[in-house]
Amino acid sequence: MGESYEARNDKYVIGVDYGTLSARAVVVCVGSGETVAESVYAYPHGILRTLPGEPADGAGELPSDFALQEIDDYVEALYHTIRTAVKQSGCRAKDVIGIGIDATSSTFIPLSASGEPLCKTEGFQQNPHAWLKLWKHHGAQEEADRITALAAKRQEKFMMRCGGKVNAEWMLPKLLEIAQKAPKVYEATDNFMEVSDYLVYLLTGEVTRCMCHAGYKLLWNEEDGYPSEDFLEALHPCLASLSGKLKGKELRVGECAGRLTKEAAQKLGLREGTAVAASLIDAHVAVPSVGIDGADKALMILGTSCCMLLCSEKLSYIQGISGCVKDAVLPGLYAYEAGQSAVGDLFDWFVRNCVPGSYEREAAEKGISIHTLLAGKASQLAPGESGLVALDWWNGNRSCLADAKLSGMILGMTLRTKPEELYRALLEATAFGMRAIFEEFHRGGVTAKELYACGGIVGKNPFMMQLYADILGQTIYTSSTEQGSAFGAAVYAAVAAGAAEGGYLSVKEAAGRMGRSGGRRYEPVPQNVEAYNRLYREYKILHDYFGAGGNEVMHRLMK
Amino acid sequence: MGESYEARNDKYVIGVDYGTLSARAVVVCVGSGETVAESVYAYPHGILRTLPGEPADGAGELPSDFALQEIDDYVEALYHTIRTAVKQSGCRAKDVIGIGIDATSSTFIPLSASGEPLCKTEGFQQNPHAWLKLWKHHGAQEEADRITALAAKRQEKFMMRCGGKVNAEWMLPKLLEIAQKAPKVYEATDNFMEVSDYLVYLLTGEVTRCMCHAGYKLLWNEEDGYPSEDFLEALHPCLASLSGKLKGKELRVGECAGRLTKEAAQKLGLREGTAVAASLIDAHVAVPSVGIDGADKALMILGTSCCMLLCSEKLSYIQGISGCVKDAVLPGLYAYEAGQSAVGDLFDWFVRNCVPGSYEREAAEKGISIHTLLAGKASQLAPGESGLVALDWWNGNRSCLADAKLSGMILGMTLRTKPEELYRALLEATAFGMRAIFEEFHRGGVTAKELYACGGIVGKNPFMMQLYADILGQTIYTSSTEQGSAFGAAVYAAVAAGAAEGGYLSVKEAAGRMGRSGGRRYEPVPQNVEAYNRLYREYKILHDYFGAGGNEVMHRLMK
Repeated sequence: MGESYEARNDKYVIGVDYGTLSARAVVVCVGSGETVAESVYAYPHGILRTLPGEPADGAGELPSDFALQEIDDYVEALYHTIRTAVKQSGCRAKDVIGIGIDATSSTFIPLSASGEPLCKTEGFQQNPHAWLKLWKHHGAQEEADRITALAAKRQEKFMMRCGGKVNAEWMLPKLLEIAQKAPKVYEATDNFMEVSDYLVYLLTGEVTRCMCHAGYKLLWNEEDGYPSEDFLEALHPCLASLSGKLKGKELRVGECAGRLTKEAAQKLGLREGTAVAASLIDAHVAVPSVGIDGADKALMILGTSCCMLLCSEKLSYIQGISGCVKDAVLPGLYAYEAGQSAVGDLFDWFVRNCVPGSYEREAAEKGISIHTLLAGKASQLAPGESGLVALDWWNGNRSCLADAKLSGMILGMTLRTKPEELYRALLEATAFGMRAIFEEFHRGGVTAKELYACGGIVGKNPFMMQLYADILGQTIYTSSTEQGSAFGAAVYAAVAAGAAEGGYLSVKEAAGRMGRSGGRRYEPVPQNVEAYNRLYREYKILHDYFGAGGNEVMHRLMK
Repeated sequence: MGESYEARNDKYVIGVDYGTLSARAVVVCVGSGETVAESVYAYPHGILRTLPGEPADGAGELPSDFALQEIDDYVEALYHTIRTAVKQSGCRAKDVIGIGIDATSSTFIPLSASGEPLCKTEGFQQNPHAWLKLWKHHGAQEEADRITALAAKRQEKFMMRCGGKVNAEWMLPKLLEIAQKAPKVYEATDNFMEVSDYLVYLLTGEVTRCMCHAGYKLLWNEEDGYPSEDFLEALHPCLASLSGKLKGKELRVGECAGRLTKEAAQKLGLREGTAVAASLIDAHVAVPSVGIDGADKALMILGTSCCMLLCSEKLSYIQGISGCVKDAVLPGLYAYEAGQSAVGDLFDWFVRNCVPGSYEREAAEKGISIHTLLAGKASQLAPGESGLVALDWWNGNRSCLADAKLSGMILGMTLRTKPEELYRALLEATAFGMRAIFEEFHRGGVTAKELYACGGIVGKNPFMMQLYADILGQTIYTSSTEQGSAFGAAVYAAVAAGAAEGGYLSVKEAAGRMGRSGGRRYEPVPQNVEAYNRLYREYKILHDYFGAGGNEVMHRLMK
């Protein structure tokens, strides 16, 4: 039996979120869900342009599509942020019942047989493939294409769960890259570990592998395990032995991966034996953090790009998604991930490249951002008034066309077209893109009955959120939490601690108690919904014409 | 027999060009073609927003699509500019052998039986339809559509000469507008006169009607005359009597319309009996002024929009042209006119609306225009490098789709796309649009074997002219004359004066002697031609998809 909810008000959990350039820890009250302290640590080395010891004169420069990092930055971030946040919170060590860690994914490190990062061992310091590879390392595009082609040819079952296309940012193509381009690294590696699993290992001494990473980035599932030896061998002879290099039991999210070792507890100033949750993927932990605790509720994380997560009881093949893994977000449910490759990035591109000086001066005089100025002017227009429609593919289309070689389009301009009209058309285009994704899910029998939004743009651009409600034709609940992912990791920590220690029995319960939408709610305006239904039909015709074979002009121009 | 060419070096002609907001006179040496003096006069009343005597509080404001002017401004401009230019030139009156007048078209005035402007007579001062109507008066769009529809239904022969569509800026729809909306004005009018014919009448006392106006704007031709009484009556019962209200013998260009009356000669300080040429259309007179003296040489007049003129020995039906009239530019040849509704206007729209403050500052620091800055940056790119392609329909498509309800499109944008790439794509789009026109002519058996360009943009944007040469795949000869149309009117004046008085025998001879391309010559660069042939194919697919029925999205959005 768990403690009473009142007692939980004296219990705390820690969430640590590893982003691309910094990590952030929060201390959260288990009972109220309130964040009581927070600490941030920027990685001193950022993303490496050369390996240490290489001349910085350009000769030793890493290829431009490489993204390597210094593992010591991650380790230092762990100790620094937790110590600082706990101190700031004033909590007693005995009241901290759990730790959760999320990171970008697939961001991984090859380990030696002794559990050391390979890049720190003799003979491998100067081999880039022995280093921590960040999610956005793009050196394995060819490998990803080869995996997709071979899997399609062999009709591999896992293709059903990954939307029919393997992404170069996942772990499997990056491992093929190593096997091909750095066979010695491949051979010497005892275990390829996601960095968040590695950090859990540092704290607990337990080698585990959260199934969220394994499922989305290694095409694993509970029933079939990893892609077959036969398939892997066909990709590259070395890969036949891959499963031996993917050590660690696969854990569900919210499971307890292990307990703080004495040494780690001392370093952190916490209690030995404190529960540490199975590691997590950064975007995914936002789901319970906004209070989503069940099926058919979609979360849109709107930042530079958009990540959409939707849990369902149903397994269905949906074209062009980023993946579908059971138990990876809410235990018991299939968690679908899909996305758009440019949202905030697109609007920023517009502001940097397409807004005249007179608007910059007007924004400066009013003391507001150019985004706010444009949104204000754009909000004076009626839907469809500008006569513009755009396709939002400035960075390709992630879902559901899964085509990085598509590009942006805008039409309907006249000599009277104003910048705010173009800006509004771009906002609308990303919402139309989102609607196309939901329609694809709906066709597959997976329906978003409730919509939630969180992420950097949500609080900053209420005009955009209203557009989304009007275009998607549904109420949108937004989250007010600023910490986002770190807070979500803390929710899972409360589950890993378990009810007996003052945490929760399930992710569902923890999400319901701690999670919070709490932000503004956006209701669709019926007459706008109707106007946008018409405009969306135009978008969809153009979407299919340019994106699904009507006219391959974007591909030809990309060459 | 004419005088020797040497003697012509002492003879002078005057050209007067009536633009939309000002008139300009030049004095040109008949022998050398040199412009020796020039004078400009801006119309004091501009384009009227209210009629005189109406309150300016908005109540008496004219409809926004109306464009009326004060005839007194035109008359004053005639005397003022000629007197000033002649005085400045120092020529003796006896050495001035001819006067030519061109104006925008159809810009016309209803006259009473006594030859007075109707708007100056009792009872009509307050009726807008009694006033001088400028070419860009757009009150007769519905009437133009009705004429097109009826003519198409009846398969009227004149449709072959006007590209299959009647334009609201022509005289016939404007006359139907008057017959319907101001029957008293229609009834009281004795003669509807083009303003340039009216000015010729003021100088000579002769009522004439140049066939360039009659042909392009009233669908007249030598063989069949005006559209049949039967057709006109079907449009409106009153129009059955129209030919009686279109007085004056139709004259070829270069014909002598009459001679300066004593009174006019005194006002101008010129010799009584000086030859006055049949009136002219402003754009058309540029043809001999750049030295074009025969068939199959196309002139592109590149300004805010583009007007293309091409003379041919052949009569052919070409879809979507602005007209085809025999003897209207070079006697003996069919003169085809086609055009693009936004060229300079499109680039100006871009500079005003889409160029960031940092570019404005860079241009200011370098002391150059934003156009020059953008052209400089754009010139560093290779054809097709940006991956962009645009449709140039920001103001609809004049030729050869003849569809004002089309709009602009641009595609291929990525997060790396820069303003200079967008700018270049727009320049390319207008050149592609020009190429589509030439291809339509070529399909009809009318081929531009030599290309000439003149107009405001030509000298200012050599980068653009090189693009045009590369995209059209032909050498482009450009004109250096600054006066353009006024100079062209002077060429026709030398023909009207005739060889016996020291002028020329024919327009061909005058164009050859006086006309001057004289500007820079642009040669196509073979590798660019090849790249642009590929890119043009993409343009043409999109042109047909959006412009010729593949997807009517632009029409639907325009609503």
